[in-house]
Amino acid sequence: MIAERMKPLMANNSAIRTMFEEGGRLKAKYGAENVFDFSLGNPNVPAPAEIKDAVLEIMEEMDPVELHGYMSNAGFEDVRETIAQSINRRFGTGFGSRNIVMTVGAASGLNIVLKTIINPDEEVVIFAPYFLEYNWYVKNYDGKVVQAPTDKETFYPDLDAFEGLITEKTRAVIINTPNNPTGVIYSEETIRKLGEILDRKQKELGTTIFLIADEPYRELAYDGVEVPYVTKYYNNTFVVYSYSKSLSLPGERIGYVVIPDEMEESELVFDTVAAANRINGSVNAPSLQQKIIAKCVDAQVNLEAYDKNRTALYEGLKDCGFDCVKPEGAFYMFIKSPVEDEKEFCAAAKKYNILIVPGSSFACPGYVRLAYCVSYETIVNSMPSFKKLAAEYGL
Amino acid sequence: MIAERMKPLMANNSAIRTMFEEGGRLKAKYGAENVFDFSLGNPNVPAPAEIKDAVLEIMEEMDPVELHGYMSNAGFEDVRETIAQSINRRFGTGFGSRNIVMTVGAASGLNIVLKTIINPDEEVVIFAPYFLEYNWYVKNYDGKVVQAPTDKETFYPDLDAFEGLITEKTRAVIINTPNNPTGVIYSEETIRKLGEILDRKQKELGTTIFLIADEPYRELAYDGVEVPYVTKYYNNTFVVYSYSKSLSLPGERIGYVVIPDEMEESELVFDTVAAANRINGSVNAPSLQQKIIAKCVDAQVNLEAYDKNRTALYEGLKDCGFDCVKPEGAFYMFIKSPVEDEKEFCAAAKKYNILIVPGSSFACPGYVRLAYCVSYETIVNSMPSFKKLAAEYGL
Repeated sequence: MIAERMKPLMANNSAIRTMFEEGGRLKAKYGAENVFDFSLGNPNVPAPAEIKDAVLEIMEEMDPVELHGYMSNAGFEDVRETIAQSINRRFGTGFGSRNIVMTVGAASGLNIVLKTIINPDEEVVIFAPYFLEYNWYVKNYDGKVVQAPTDKETFYPDLDAFEGLITEKTRAVIINTPNNPTGVIYSEETIRKLGEILDRKQKELGTTIFLIADEPYRELAYDGVEVPYVTKYYNNTFVVYSYSKSLSLPGERIGYVVIPDEMEESELVFDTVAAANRINGSVNAPSLQQKIIAKCVDAQVNLEAYDKNRTALYEGLKDCGFDCVKPEGAFYMFIKSPVEDEKEFCAAAKKYNILIVPGSSFACPGYVRLAYCVSYETIVNSMPSFKKLAAEYGL
Repeated sequence: MIAERMKPLMANNSAIRTMFEEGGRLKAKYGAENVFDFSLGNPNVPAPAEIKDAVLEIMEEMDPVELHGYMSNAGFEDVRETIAQSINRRFGTGFGSRNIVMTVGAASGLNIVLKTIINPDEEVVIFAPYFLEYNWYVKNYDGKVVQAPTDKETFYPDLDAFEGLITEKTRAVIINTPNNPTGVIYSEETIRKLGEILDRKQKELGTTIFLIADEPYRELAYDGVEVPYVTKYYNNTFVVYSYSKSLSLPGERIGYVVIPDEMEESELVFDTVAAANRINGSVNAPSLQQKIIAKCVDAQVNLEAYDKNRTALYEGLKDCGFDCVKPEGAFYMFIKSPVEDEKEFCAAAKKYNILIVPGSSFACPGYVRLAYCVSYETIVNSMPSFKKLAAEYGL
């Protein structure tokens, strides 16, 4: 009775729900503190204090008709200008309000960008492993996902293979760095080479290929590692950003899309992204949240908490004998399953009340993802269970 | 360079922008107080005081991780339950949280409902005049709009003609009452007959036909006129609601969809609407706004202000000799153009710094729409100009 196109989604949805329900069942049975839930990318570090201060100030200062009212579909101009200047200060770019469209989070930003550029059957290249929701976003506009390989040790793009996958059908490439699920951050050299390949391919094929940098984890980089600003390396780049992780506001649905002047037909693309924001039903990003961001543009969550978790989990799992690389960013660790069928490994982990996600949920079987946006105690307390799990596999 | 599907939208967009820019130009030239802008449906009555109180309370009371965090794609369960109980108290329905999906306003609610039910080339019947954005929403899912006629005096549906338009291709019917642009409220008798026709047609054709009641103006009803609750008259009804007008929060993007138990495969439809909310990129309705609504579920904007405007504008225009019906709801008046080509009339009005929207923008040429969500002074001060305009047409 539902639309045919929604049926595969709903079949898949039930699998996810089964996993959630199982987690709930375990917590009810053993107590939440005795279940080690590494399955969800829901930030556990609270929003910085600046957010509350900003809300209180705005409610005192602003006229409610303006604060809660409609504005341009691209968002409040002052908010966009403030964000642009903040990016310019940090990355030496030259953006203004004309380059920023405020969005209902990054997920909506990706959708309106794809709606703006994708014709039916055009291809979007994505490096695996990746966040599988991208598949649905691309399908929303009748596009096709083409998976590109990464090195199975470093999870860096295999750029030679990538170049071979670019055809006249290629309309866009999505990169996500810092990466979900691997935590990898692409180096400047990688981004530069990627841009060179795309420039070359555009000329060779006479097409326009967009690079979409999905950057909800940009601020979550550890050990001083730099996350290159992608528009500086390739002109036809959209940056899709979210405050979900950088300010721990995932439920508020606030983010933006950057459309640089250097992009082909930049003004038309900007207007089309804003119009897509309107007709997909968002209309505009939530107005109060926009004003909050303008006041908190340089605020940040307590990164040390995630960093402490990262080190504790990495050291702990290595001690257990698991094969893992210390991630440079985001709040995920992607480790090799000790058996080929990583779903079997996830099922074994569940016996110890450890909840982790199979790599096949990220187009990368043989690995599992652990989200360490949990309390430090969860990590410490989970270690005896991980030890028993490792022992089962003779590690 | 943009997607082919977006090109017609952008061609149309330029026309709207030209109108906006002209308004801005007039205001810059003559001063905002000397331009009588009846073109926009942007509420001018501020949000009720309860909104600010609720925000301040929530910021003090709630844990930020919960407040700003992800929840179910359908929204916070407590918020949904509170809304359901409020509807039950007012309309004698029997809803619970299982019947409510929180959305990024009504525009997004309509989109996720259409995404849930429409297969390519299926038809959506809409009574003209109507809010033309519906066309884009239906096209987003490759559906087709079929316009149904209304009586040109009362703007009530022509139900005989409507019945003749229902075919095996008909998947949904959209009604919008109180109506934009006419201000008409459908009577209980009309809603009942509409439901009977759909029931009969479903049986006759062996299909499922959904009725979608788009109700952003539900609370804006004057003179004690009742707005029937549509789920009571037809089982396969979605109610799509927004707080944009009832609480003057249009920029905040907060609303909901009602999926009654009586709908066919109600649970699957609920889950699919929630999943559509996720994959269209909204993920969930903004979390702080959800919590605000739960605290303000029975608050309302100052309806008297709109009512005063309604009467002043109606009396004033009638005095001028214009052919108009006093609207029962919303904040629009839809009047007959004194010349067949209403665009000519709109151009003439602009000479007097009066900005109004041609009926052809609502699939109803020969009429014009005036939005009276403006200051009372705007209405009073505009009357000498309306008199001169009327004189031009010998009224």
